[in-house]
Amino acid sequence: MTYLPDETHDPHLRSWIASANGPATDFPVQNLPLSIFKPLHSTAAPRIGVAIGDQILDLYACGKTGLLQGLPEPLQQACSTSTLNALMGLGEGASHALRHRLSQLLQINTTLPRDELQILVSMAESEMLLPATIGDYTDFYASIFHATNVGKLFRPNNPLLPNYKHLPIAYHGRASSLTISGTSIHLPLGQQQPADEGAMPGFDPSQRLDYEMEVGLFVGQGNELGMPIGIGQAESHLFGLCLVNDWSARDIQAWEYQPLGPFLGKSFATSLSPWVVTTEALVPFRCPAYGRADDDPTPLPYLSSLQNTEHGGIEITVEVWMSSARMRKEAIAPIRLSQANFAQMYWTAAQMITHHTSNGCNLRPGDLLASGTVSGPEVGAQGSLLEITQQGRSPIELPSGETRTFLTDGDEVILRGYCEKAGYTRIGFGDCRGQIIGQGIVEGRSGQQSPTS
Amino acid sequence: MTYLPDETHDPHLRSWIASANGPATDFPVQNLPLSIFKPLHSTAAPRIGVAIGDQILDLYACGKTGLLQGLPEPLQQACSTSTLNALMGLGEGASHALRHRLSQLLQINTTLPRDELQILVSMAESEMLLPATIGDYTDFYASIFHATNVGKLFRPNNPLLPNYKHLPIAYHGRASSLTISGTSIHLPLGQQQPADEGAMPGFDPSQRLDYEMEVGLFVGQGNELGMPIGIGQAESHLFGLCLVNDWSARDIQAWEYQPLGPFLGKSFATSLSPWVVTTEALVPFRCPAYGRADDDPTPLPYLSSLQNTEHGGIEITVEVWMSSARMRKEAIAPIRLSQANFAQMYWTAAQMITHHTSNGCNLRPGDLLASGTVSGPEVGAQGSLLEITQQGRSPIELPSGETRTFLTDGDEVILRGYCEKAGYTRIGFGDCRGQIIGQGIVEGRSGQQSPTS
Repeated sequence: MTYLPDETHDPHLRSWIASANGPATDFPVQNLPLSIFKPLHSTAAPRIGVAIGDQILDLYACGKTGLLQGLPEPLQQACSTSTLNALMGLGEGASHALRHRLSQLLQINTTLPRDELQILVSMAESEMLLPATIGDYTDFYASIFHATNVGKLFRPNNPLLPNYKHLPIAYHGRASSLTISGTSIHLPLGQQQPADEGAMPGFDPSQRLDYEMEVGLFVGQGNELGMPIGIGQAESHLFGLCLVNDWSARDIQAWEYQPLGPFLGKSFATSLSPWVVTTEALVPFRCPAYGRADDDPTPLPYLSSLQNTEHGGIEITVEVWMSSARMRKEAIAPIRLSQANFAQMYWTAAQMITHHTSNGCNLRPGDLLASGTVSGPEVGAQGSLLEITQQGRSPIELPSGETRTFLTDGDEVILRGYCEKAGYTRIGFGDCRGQIIGQGIVEGRSGQQSPTS
Repeated sequence: MTYLPDETHDPHLRSWIASANGPATDFPVQNLPLSIFKPLHSTAAPRIGVAIGDQILDLYACGKTGLLQGLPEPLQQACSTSTLNALMGLGEGASHALRHRLSQLLQINTTLPRDELQILVSMAESEMLLPATIGDYTDFYASIFHATNVGKLFRPNNPLLPNYKHLPIAYHGRASSLTISGTSIHLPLGQQQPADEGAMPGFDPSQRLDYEMEVGLFVGQGNELGMPIGIGQAESHLFGLCLVNDWSARDIQAWEYQPLGPFLGKSFATSLSPWVVTTEALVPFRCPAYGRADDDPTPLPYLSSLQNTEHGGIEITVEVWMSSARMRKEAIAPIRLSQANFAQMYWTAAQMITHHTSNGCNLRPGDLLASGTVSGPEVGAQGSLLEITQQGRSPIELPSGETRTFLTDGDEVILRGYCEKAGYTRIGFGDCRGQIIGQGIVEGRSGQQSPTS
């Protein structure tokens, strides 16, 4: 892993695809995020695509027309599959070689017989799928601001538990209900705490449906069972990042979670933004790890390295926007509810990977580690409604005159993320959208396919 | 789902494979459990096998030689794959048809050109693999005796939390580190609670490595995201059962688990017995659901049905046996540490499936639900060392003169399970074995393959 920008990050690079050159696009030629797509109404197999402006470069078509020639054979083969898992498993060298080839192919000074090749598909004419078959999904709790905000609601005098500053807390999430941006979210039913001890719990649609604004980390090369990944090697196992909305039913969670943690309060759905922004694309936006307070404990040696301290952070602004059904009907634009920076996480991506494998647990290519809710110390930097409304005690007002404590039928939540830095081209993650629908059957695309389908 | 035994359960049935007819075998012709195997030293693809005495019936070979002709085409195709997922996904009708065909093929009065067909492989000459690609692994906590025993250690006056009798508590487990019986278990490293508040935690090999004796439930047909499975349909989504050793590092778990539940204390390894005993094979051993106390709450309507009350239980005796390195060196047989019955679980398999999907969470064919530690009220019926040794306060004595509070390097743990009932042939699950090895690289077979491999 290098932290030095190279020629693919040059802000002067422009693409022959005009829509990639404007200041507003998330996908300039300096970004080159990867995902899986298929043309709408097509019966062709899904394939790997690269976002460029408002277009998708079709890597399967590129391979067929010889544009990937000269790349290592396993890399060429990985580019013709229907998930990113094989590419992820090839490791850093392959990612690096692919990025440089893609940058060359898409630069304005490249001469290609473009009209004949049919290597581009319009995003508007495409359906996005989950970028990988995700074997396991782990959710961390890495923002000390979020942990403190939530802790204060339950333990005002003692918000942070004693383990928090020593290890990155996490739990296993549900992989089957990971869904791609745009999938509607079914308001979940669930048991809710009885009003009085001894009374029967209710079983009703959640009254406290929340979003959680998170960053997702896709594992590249995995590790064998019993072989921990040291902190010095952890970054080389990180393929790329996306946005994650870890929908949470607070009432279901509150009643079920003792003593074994969240279960049905989370497992009804988790939304992912489709594009995986590679760690290579993020090089210009690396920064020191979060600066701990002087009286905070130093992490144990297995979680510490100079490299991690100096470069372990990534400056990504993440935001949550929301519109109600009424706002959309009255043509009122979505409003921003949250804005925070991933660089303010108490634990780095490398520390999450190293801790996760420290007991010998194996990670596999395509596994997803989510950061936990990204919150910051500033007003407006709280990444969940639980924090913003103080558990529902302080409703927010919408421009339509409505109020909200938690989400309700018809609400749409949009996560956005981007990196900006003087001297570099802004890159973005694309939207992660989900609209709440009332009880009944989920419409739109469903969750992960079966492992063998 | 029917609860009536049929001709495949007839205790008078005998097989032309002599080893299937003795009283000691786990695998008489009335059992017919399924798994994935490959002949030792073979480069052939893994295939589906049926345990019969000390032999394995090779379903791929059966298909090739026409022995599955007449069965539905999708079922024949599923029988020629390398995991049980496709077969599991076909549902009850396919399981029923396959069981009846297998019973016919293996009965003593069946005439087959056996020597020519090469449809049998000796178990001794085979390697067993995980029976399915397990997309998600969920671990329940369904024994009220276990929950009470563990609760007493931490809250002597209030061992059971208020939610316990209202819903089957569970958490998401780690799928990547599920391993097949016989895989060595690496003593995990991990952070451990500091002796004094303010002191630094240790990072050492676990001193409190435990087993947990559980029953695993394999999901058959799945459900779509947003489509709960009602209690009346739950049994039809259950394909079969196995034994699970949910290894637990109690010291790692104690320090990390607040507030989000178990993580690294569990994710280093979970061992499965290879053979999946189908729900069809278990029909003669069905029994009423656990009899709740008169002052226990009635489960909410979504978790209740007359069928579940009358037939929701399954009588399976589960046992844990153990030997130390010294015992094996001195040729001392393993000793039994635990023996309990799955029928004593507070929550039934159907209730676990229905609760799991009640929020719309989707289950996929091959998903694994484990029951949680099976403990009973009797002396000797505690399914973990945590309970038996009272958190290490009461060591057990081994016949070699050694003592144990928790497991150590060289110890081998063996789970066994079987069903016995007057008028029916005893069926068994086969062993689930795991030996603890010191720190270093895990030897033997590793965990689940990558989703795409």
